[in-house]
Amino acid sequence: MATVPSVSYSITVRLEVPAGGKAVSQLTHAVENAGGVVTALDVTNAGHEKLRIDVTCAARDTDHAQAIVDRLGEVEDVAIHKVSDRTFLMHLGGKIEMQSKVPLRNRDELSMAYTPGVARVSMAIARNPEDARRLTIKRNSVAVVTDGSAVLGLGNIGPAAALPVMEGKAALFKRFAGIDAWPICLDTQDADQIVEIVRAISPGFGGINLEDISAPRCFEIERRLRELVDIPVFHDDQHGTAIVVLAALTNALRVVKKELSEVRITLAGAGAAGTAVLRLLLAAGARNVIVCDYLGAVHQGRDDLDESLRWIAEHTNAEGYSEDLRGAVKGADVFIGVSAPGILTGDDIATMNSDAVVFALANPEPEVSPDDAREHAAVVATGRSDYPNQINNVLAFPGVFRGLLDAQADGVTQEMLLAAARALAAVVSPEELGPNYIVPSVFHPDVAGAVAAAVRESAGGKARGFTEA
Amino acid sequence: MATVPSVSYSITVRLEVPAGGKAVSQLTHAVENAGGVVTALDVTNAGHEKLRIDVTCAARDTDHAQAIVDRLGEVEDVAIHKVSDRTFLMHLGGKIEMQSKVPLRNRDELSMAYTPGVARVSMAIARNPEDARRLTIKRNSVAVVTDGSAVLGLGNIGPAAALPVMEGKAALFKRFAGIDAWPICLDTQDADQIVEIVRAISPGFGGINLEDISAPRCFEIERRLRELVDIPVFHDDQHGTAIVVLAALTNALRVVKKELSEVRITLAGAGAAGTAVLRLLLAAGARNVIVCDYLGAVHQGRDDLDESLRWIAEHTNAEGYSEDLRGAVKGADVFIGVSAPGILTGDDIATMNSDAVVFALANPEPEVSPDDAREHAAVVATGRSDYPNQINNVLAFPGVFRGLLDAQADGVTQEMLLAAARALAAVVSPEELGPNYIVPSVFHPDVAGAVAAAVRESAGGKARGFTEA
Repeated sequence: MATVPSVSYSITVRLEVPAGGKAVSQLTHAVENAGGVVTALDVTNAGHEKLRIDVTCAARDTDHAQAIVDRLGEVEDVAIHKVSDRTFLMHLGGKIEMQSKVPLRNRDELSMAYTPGVARVSMAIARNPEDARRLTIKRNSVAVVTDGSAVLGLGNIGPAAALPVMEGKAALFKRFAGIDAWPICLDTQDADQIVEIVRAISPGFGGINLEDISAPRCFEIERRLRELVDIPVFHDDQHGTAIVVLAALTNALRVVKKELSEVRITLAGAGAAGTAVLRLLLAAGARNVIVCDYLGAVHQGRDDLDESLRWIAEHTNAEGYSEDLRGAVKGADVFIGVSAPGILTGDDIATMNSDAVVFALANPEPEVSPDDAREHAAVVATGRSDYPNQINNVLAFPGVFRGLLDAQADGVTQEMLLAAARALAAVVSPEELGPNYIVPSVFHPDVAGAVAAAVRESAGGKARGFTEA
Repeated sequence: MATVPSVSYSITVRLEVPAGGKAVSQLTHAVENAGGVVTALDVTNAGHEKLRIDVTCAARDTDHAQAIVDRLGEVEDVAIHKVSDRTFLMHLGGKIEMQSKVPLRNRDELSMAYTPGVARVSMAIARNPEDARRLTIKRNSVAVVTDGSAVLGLGNIGPAAALPVMEGKAALFKRFAGIDAWPICLDTQDADQIVEIVRAISPGFGGINLEDISAPRCFEIERRLRELVDIPVFHDDQHGTAIVVLAALTNALRVVKKELSEVRITLAGAGAAGTAVLRLLLAAGARNVIVCDYLGAVHQGRDDLDESLRWIAEHTNAEGYSEDLRGAVKGADVFIGVSAPGILTGDDIATMNSDAVVFALANPEPEVSPDDAREHAAVVATGRSDYPNQINNVLAFPGVFRGLLDAQADGVTQEMLLAAARALAAVVSPEELGPNYIVPSVFHPDVAGAVAAAVRESAGGKARGFTEA
């Protein structure tokens, strides 16, 4: 499908043109003619004869960026110097750092922060392990753990290549919830090893965010860890997605005036996200769901069901529908896709019930073209930032962990996830609610606080203020 | 042994006294009479009748702090309010944090730092894993790994109680070398598990600093890890100590005009630090060393030798001396203790060769009273900050890792450790060198840079500048 120029494919081209004349306007025309968008033009050196100019422009993708550079090279008397990729520049040297919160200017400060003073703090924790939440980073820290097996839509690219994503995640934790997260990229994809490693590193963290671990291992890893450790374990690809989907669906159904307990939902995708979305929908009261994977509807008559699919078959599709996704969509009130690009057409959406709700969340290319879906559905949401109603995990995980840490929670419950979804939905006021505004922007200032408060409350009155030593 | 008041046992006492009169001078006298040292006196609220005052003072230990508070309570018409321990206040909520280096103010920045832009950065690393050193935190990050089995002098207090120390270490890494370190406190003391965990987490770090892991497991863990991972592994308790001891001994021998290859050295302690000190001394040219543990001299005739002690017996004590430490000290040129408090007296030091060098590094209480040792030895060093010549690992590890990271080194060699020790010794100029100045202050601005340059050079010309994408 066609895409538009994006700053995530933004380049800066350093070039020289003759001073005087119309070189500058030729440059901007060249970019525009190539289909790019000029976002900045800085003259970085002005001589009598030559101007050095940095032209920054957004492209659609890498090939398009090259095409723009080629077109710039055709401008009369231009000399192209360096082409910089702004995204790569932003990542150079990493996106996060560690900072000391205590001054270490002199020996006195050193002797309090480190030896010998620190010994008394350590002994206090040895005597009362709960003090670790008061006297160390544990109270505000989250490990972002991945094995690199299912990174974004890129697949199994391994732990080193996953690191830029995990750093970004850590940066988001800080930006949206003030949490100190650190990436832990594991060079193993063995479930037993991952469980054992995360268990072993847990003393230093107040929460574990599992990230981009492929199904079905992610289910087992999370379930076993929750039994083993005394801090919350949250696989964001599952539960973060589920919270935002439930919040968005709650508001979408308000728009079309239907009840969750009465609508028929077709869910495409039975992986990590799909399974978690299903479980949370059922917990929230959905009663009529058909789940489809790449083999068609999941039903009890299929002979390829693993443990996870069997659970799905037993809790959905009461009538035993056994055909394909296209048939399952027919007459449905809601379609939720967390699966693969382009598996449905506008014509399929046209077969849905009136006032249909379509969440096509495959990224970057949705299950159905949002433009086509809009012609037949009342509410359409995607995972993309260039359409309304972006279903983005950033709406959930920062607030969820803020609430968990503040409550000093020792685990995550489904009630907390439901509370988070309710709180997120409620950030959209009745006056604001509409087909193109069912979830708030990720930059809405109330989101993380509202989600955190709901999770903290659901976790029980465990939240404690600091008492000074 | 008597200790003096220290800011690491510093308390702030909030109290009220009558305004007017001599209450304030009575307060300072009370602290002084109790043996404390007033370091600050802040009037935080001045009314017509009452003054609220925060008295901050240094005590010797916890009991002494209480004695000072009791004495303050005897001042006429005083009301003691809150007593705060300044060290604990400094540790509240932890001493480190994670910071994002990239702005995330709007959707464009989000789309470059995280999805979709980050996908291209991840794919670049998937294609060329070496790019992780360029495009991620790996280039500047160190994992500070402990199992909590030998924390400071506190023993086996476990991973949670070790966390304040590891946070302090991370803060020192940043303060002295600009390195982003993060503590990893492991809830296991099984060598196999520790090796496997550290191997698995290594993709996200540029170096591993093992910390406070007890001997002999620390030897095996380090050796196996060095074979398994492609980043430097450095057990600071071993090699950091060894580097600083060798640097200090180099300068001490300059003071007394003796040669390392000719002096007789008695080394008390055959644990992690002692073994590493020995190995580095031998590598530097020492030829006549006797090592003693708590059973006396290590020699080939002992029937209790494990692998590590056997190596020591085979490489030292050529004459097979088999008596106790006291006898081994007699006639020695150098005594180095990394063992236990108070095992020698001034009289023992008196039996050493003329112009003796004594490094009594047990902390906080040295092997021999430094005051007593000074009466008989030409040069005395300790691990304490309240005597000259403090042997402090902070002199080594920040610069060592700075050099390793800058060189993108894949391991640590003994030549690097020797180079680090030589560079550290050379920070003390011939003009400055003297019996009370054989190592620079930890705050000497040249230390980390000099050590880093030596390690980087020793690591070979691997250092690469950044090239922009």
